[in-house]
Amino acid sequence: MTAAVLCTGTELTRGELVSTNGAFLAEALTTLGFEVGAVDTVDDDIGRIESALRRLGAEHEVLVCTGGLGPTTDDLTSACVARVLGVGLVRDPESLEHIRVRLARFGREMAASNAKQADFPEGAAVLPNPNGTAPGFSVTLGRAAAFFLPGVPLEMQAMFEASVAPKIRPLVVGVTHQTLLHTFGLPESSVNDKLAGIEAAHGVIIGYRARLPEIEVKVLARAANAEEARSRSERAAAEVRSRLGPDVVYGEGQTSLAEVVCRLLEAKQATLATAESCTGGLVAEIVTNVPGASRSFLGGVVAYANAVKTKLVGVDPALLERHGAVSEEVARAMAEGVRRRFGASYGLGVTGIAGPDGGTPDKPVGLVHWAVASDSETSSKHAVFSGSREQIRKRSAWAVLALLRRS
Amino acid sequence: MTAAVLCTGTELTRGELVSTNGAFLAEALTTLGFEVGAVDTVDDDIGRIESALRRLGAEHEVLVCTGGLGPTTDDLTSACVARVLGVGLVRDPESLEHIRVRLARFGREMAASNAKQADFPEGAAVLPNPNGTAPGFSVTLGRAAAFFLPGVPLEMQAMFEASVAPKIRPLVVGVTHQTLLHTFGLPESSVNDKLAGIEAAHGVIIGYRARLPEIEVKVLARAANAEEARSRSERAAAEVRSRLGPDVVYGEGQTSLAEVVCRLLEAKQATLATAESCTGGLVAEIVTNVPGASRSFLGGVVAYANAVKTKLVGVDPALLERHGAVSEEVARAMAEGVRRRFGASYGLGVTGIAGPDGGTPDKPVGLVHWAVASDSETSSKHAVFSGSREQIRKRSAWAVLALLRRS
Repeated sequence: MTAAVLCTGTELTRGELVSTNGAFLAEALTTLGFEVGAVDTVDDDIGRIESALRRLGAEHEVLVCTGGLGPTTDDLTSACVARVLGVGLVRDPESLEHIRVRLARFGREMAASNAKQADFPEGAAVLPNPNGTAPGFSVTLGRAAAFFLPGVPLEMQAMFEASVAPKIRPLVVGVTHQTLLHTFGLPESSVNDKLAGIEAAHGVIIGYRARLPEIEVKVLARAANAEEARSRSERAAAEVRSRLGPDVVYGEGQTSLAEVVCRLLEAKQATLATAESCTGGLVAEIVTNVPGASRSFLGGVVAYANAVKTKLVGVDPALLERHGAVSEEVARAMAEGVRRRFGASYGLGVTGIAGPDGGTPDKPVGLVHWAVASDSETSSKHAVFSGSREQIRKRSAWAVLALLRRS
Repeated sequence: MTAAVLCTGTELTRGELVSTNGAFLAEALTTLGFEVGAVDTVDDDIGRIESALRRLGAEHEVLVCTGGLGPTTDDLTSACVARVLGVGLVRDPESLEHIRVRLARFGREMAASNAKQADFPEGAAVLPNPNGTAPGFSVTLGRAAAFFLPGVPLEMQAMFEASVAPKIRPLVVGVTHQTLLHTFGLPESSVNDKLAGIEAAHGVIIGYRARLPEIEVKVLARAANAEEARSRSERAAAEVRSRLGPDVVYGEGQTSLAEVVCRLLEAKQATLATAESCTGGLVAEIVTNVPGASRSFLGGVVAYANAVKTKLVGVDPALLERHGAVSEEVARAMAEGVRRRFGASYGLGVTGIAGPDGGTPDKPVGLVHWAVASDSETSSKHAVFSGSREQIRKRSAWAVLALLRRS
């Protein structure tokens, strides 16, 4: 069973927007067990929309289209589908009422252009849109069960889950189960090498998604029934965990390294304070982006200037003088100092050279020292990270959190 | 003249990677003056690659393809192009030597799979790849001048600029000039409304790109010669600036709000310190992501817990008691306190409720107060931002920097 995705919109073909809808639908269809053969994008051009619909409907069993359901003149999807099917457009009274009520809630009257959003090709089944004005619809187009959804990502995603997935899941032979593992610390090629042979041994498909500096590993199993799919996916995931080790695999399902760290801190009723130089607040930013971070995160210091390292974090000026700001000694002193100043259970310190300038033969761009201090000990690590300033900062922030997680 | 983009790779049709290559090429081709009619993606399937090549070559004047030039068995592009053209593959000795030298530099021997990267369809022109192993190539495919580039974004982008753009620019009638303006503070629909009529009056195309919380405005003019295109684009851009005002339009060309702020600080030989609550280090992070930020940014405090606001920033506990942590008074005290503690020319303070919890009827989720303190005065503002926790934090950080810019 192959599936295709079609995104419409001149803002996409002009590159004004990166099409995240295409990637979302590609992943969702793959997870359901479809082989996705095309993720196409056309501009708001009647001829090109119609020819893409004809072609993809003839070549695939499932077609999901996004965009072109809005009220403006360049929203052409319903009209194009009707023309391809050789039918007329019919106004749906229920959808019209939904649109009227929805607009009224925001104090707006329904204009003729809005009413157009209740027009569907004759014979189409309407798909409700609980989060927006434009309903979607489905028709049979050539070989394909074809679904038409709005382009607004949150509306589209909710409608896909509620109205499309249940209808197309039965088309796939068997059922699928996916286990999502989060890894940090190994490059994608090493993760790939270490997992060689698992696909064949366990009858699963292993997918990777690089969300730098992390690599997500997806273990997808397809089987005759849900129980078997789940157990096969979980057995293979256990093998992935054991090959990569617990330092690399830090979590499963919908989570993030910062969230894992926050939950560990909460469970221990511990608190955290950060002292950052090269990461410039990124560690604090990532941690505080976790809802509820305030339960364990007290605060931090961005100690960019040396005077700040001394005055606010309590780093001994002699240490800075002797070893330089980018050194193991200063990273440790920052972690210990900020822990003391904030009265926290754990203190983090990170100092390095993010570039693009400022490197020396002894201390090249990318050299980063980091440390975690607790009441019993201080541990520290260092590395020379490659990449742009932003990449070096990201890798550093993740490395600090990974060290805290292991502490 | 229409152009099309084809990205190949099963990692794309499985949604493991968001196709940024498609958006990059769509934007680059649009900027050169092409109407981009299709941005398509196919998986690593010989039949589907060949049929996409035939179709897009027949329908467009320019075709740019990415991916499938690597050494592995699922890298199929050259072979598919050769089959579509009905020619054989020929090994190019110069490319072979490039690959050998490149691998040797990383201490690797050339395997048979690498040698395959020097095989091109008979009659193809080779396009050099200064940043990677795989060269690209170009052929005529149906109506189209077709270009084949590797999928690695940095290699692809450099090759597009160096080898593709110069060859296809002459195909466009006239020349184009684009002015890129950065705006912050108005939603896209308002920007859109305020610029109504400029396209027709000045003979330009106005494009928008939402890089939340910013809106970029692109003013593209096409004319018979470069001088006229430039002057028309600049006249229209001046009109955009005057309609939106200098508070909204903060910069032009390749820049960011943080960079504009850093350059202003440098020009005044001024320094900056930040005290952040709800943004959790995001303001410091954005500022320090600008190379050379250390010349004006001294550091900051992430004052999440009230005790930190008092102890490290010097906020009067009575003020916190009387007005609450999220208040104009505390934002001002944070800005003034951090300025004093760090001995900086400017101090920033920001405090708010980023959600999803923690709101009250008086102080809802999204309420944010921010302030900028200098030696002469302290100014403050507040707003109730909508959106997710991450969006509220982003909007807040940009708002703080925008206030600093105006100070």
